[in-house]
Amino acid sequence: MMKKVRLGIIGLGTQGSTYAGFIADGKIENMTIGAICDIDPAKKDVYPDVPFYDNYIDMLESGDIDAVVTTVPHYLHPEMGIEALKRDVHALVEKPAGVYAKQVRELNEVAASKPDVTFGIFFNQRTNPLYRKLKELIDQDEIGAIRRTNWIITTWWRPQSYYEQSAWRATWNGEGGGVLVNQAPHQIDLLQWICGMPKKVYSNVKYGYQRNIPVEDEVTTLLDYGNGATGVFITCTHDILGTDRFEILGDKGKIVVDDSKTLTIKRLQKPEPELNGTMTMQDVAEIMKGGDVSNIYTEEVIEFESVWGGQHMEVLRNFAANILEGEPLIAPGSDGIHGVSLANAIHLSSWLEKEVELPIDEELYFAELTKKIEAEAAVK
Amino acid sequence: MMKKVRLGIIGLGTQGSTYAGFIADGKIENMTIGAICDIDPAKKDVYPDVPFYDNYIDMLESGDIDAVVTTVPHYLHPEMGIEALKRDVHALVEKPAGVYAKQVRELNEVAASKPDVTFGIFFNQRTNPLYRKLKELIDQDEIGAIRRTNWIITTWWRPQSYYEQSAWRATWNGEGGGVLVNQAPHQIDLLQWICGMPKKVYSNVKYGYQRNIPVEDEVTTLLDYGNGATGVFITCTHDILGTDRFEILGDKGKIVVDDSKTLTIKRLQKPEPELNGTMTMQDVAEIMKGGDVSNIYTEEVIEFESVWGGQHMEVLRNFAANILEGEPLIAPGSDGIHGVSLANAIHLSSWLEKEVELPIDEELYFAELTKKIEAEAAVK
Repeated sequence: MMKKVRLGIIGLGTQGSTYAGFIADGKIENMTIGAICDIDPAKKDVYPDVPFYDNYIDMLESGDIDAVVTTVPHYLHPEMGIEALKRDVHALVEKPAGVYAKQVRELNEVAASKPDVTFGIFFNQRTNPLYRKLKELIDQDEIGAIRRTNWIITTWWRPQSYYEQSAWRATWNGEGGGVLVNQAPHQIDLLQWICGMPKKVYSNVKYGYQRNIPVEDEVTTLLDYGNGATGVFITCTHDILGTDRFEILGDKGKIVVDDSKTLTIKRLQKPEPELNGTMTMQDVAEIMKGGDVSNIYTEEVIEFESVWGGQHMEVLRNFAANILEGEPLIAPGSDGIHGVSLANAIHLSSWLEKEVELPIDEELYFAELTKKIEAEAAVK
Repeated sequence: MMKKVRLGIIGLGTQGSTYAGFIADGKIENMTIGAICDIDPAKKDVYPDVPFYDNYIDMLESGDIDAVVTTVPHYLHPEMGIEALKRDVHALVEKPAGVYAKQVRELNEVAASKPDVTFGIFFNQRTNPLYRKLKELIDQDEIGAIRRTNWIITTWWRPQSYYEQSAWRATWNGEGGGVLVNQAPHQIDLLQWICGMPKKVYSNVKYGYQRNIPVEDEVTTLLDYGNGATGVFITCTHDILGTDRFEILGDKGKIVVDDSKTLTIKRLQKPEPELNGTMTMQDVAEIMKGGDVSNIYTEEVIEFESVWGGQHMEVLRNFAANILEGEPLIAPGSDGIHGVSLANAIHLSSWLEKEVELPIDEELYFAELTKKIEAEAAVK
């Protein structure tokens, strides 16, 4: 019989219950539910045969589990990850890895001291075949060196009623931010995973623009990759007609992803610097007008279908397979700091009203965030 | 017989020759070529029956013409417009109205003192049926108050050979800028014509990034409309696979223009603030998944065809019709300052490395531009 990883689920809320369901239904072949931890004692009855804890440290030390997943508020991810890893319990941390880079750095330091304990992060979008293909295309230099990235990802519509479900939602104290921390971390991760981290960012962030919340509901960010390449990242929670369009221009072509479903790849027959040196604009205009552009570029369009839930199951399976057989992690936990740093930089630029460099001053970010939390508490 | 406007063409280069050809071919029913002015005496033979001048002041004072068009380097547009208007000669100024707002303001002041003399600007894209329709939709509040604009207009590919055609091209002294001054003024005008002027801009401008030129070949600009609305404007001359995608999000819908050919209008059944107050994200997600989104929005797609040259002929006809019959101008000359101010603000933000407010400090811009011209001269 195949060996299975006994997972401890910290937090049986929406996300934790979903994962528990997958495992209970036998959908994760290499995993069982080892134990459940929740501060709400009523959750004990959901899986009566599974050991239940109201304190996650007790669960970590119980011997009932080999690993944990932290489906808890973002601020707690680093702390719980650290406590697990310290006890040689494998940790699958929910995204974002934390709210501020300083706390995630501490988590990464502990993880680095435990190279034999598996440390993953729940970036399920990295299992999306479209984004895996996109990363492969960029890594294999199919469109050459990147010149410009542009992602408009505004499919995160959330009404006011969503924000009013819980007091902690969309607050500095409860979540540490809005769309950057709760909805867009997947795309922020994908952007840096595929295109690399920018060196500088400048942002225009709107706090409580279309929703009655203290945190951000709209973000426009200008990225500078430091090598001439630039980018734009836009997200918001008030666009009910959400756009999802990701364009990457390279020296050798262009890729456009529409609706996270359609990948359009235009490959230049020769790198643009060569066309620049050999063709006139009249040559190009005539070829484009004439319709047969194949001397300049070829176009490939790939359509993808996505099955809901499949991504999350794959992250769980891969995490367990890493523990059991050393299968490479799709999303190593140490990668989580990139998205947190980038989101922090976007906030910080708007607070300081200037361009900020990465890596950011993590102490400064923490100090500024603390001010927001204090100001918020004073209002209440 | 219909009365015709006798047009004096200042500069019989590429553009001037095109207009002369339209008129000579009888394509502008209310216009004749009154005279031609060029500093190259060889141009005299092109239209041997038309009075020829090598000095535009002489032409203005000749009595041969009722109006002029200034198809000359950008720096000269304001001066020539001023000299014409002062002499009660109607002026159709080429775009951009000038290189720096200070000189365009002087032109506008002279024009304001001559309310009976026609003053137009050659924004032929304003005659484009697609953009006229788009302006109408916005003006009629079809998608409500604007929340966000986003235009990626990188269809301005120019190879190095283009820049090397003349010594003045793409220099501070000769043109006063690159893509912002030469290629993109149409879109900069359309953007402000349709969506209004921003209150602040922050830009990342690349000078000589992919071309060996001292001026800009790539621009990324963040716009702030001062009322919460934001925007992004991107243009460059090194993208041979040019993108032209203009998205406008409003309170009541969204419009996307693809390739200046396809207009997609999504109209919300109720304004977003109302949907925000009445629907849950689950309601919306289910409607979207189910496919029948008509309870949330309707979609209209309009395809446009454009005939090359038609736009320019229409500007000439309209200009003459304004002179003869008072037909409203498609592009009043006084509108030219908006695009120049916006382009200046984009330059200035990148030079000062900070966000700048509009209207900009026009003296400061002129001083900074003068520095660029002096530095360029020192290198040569």
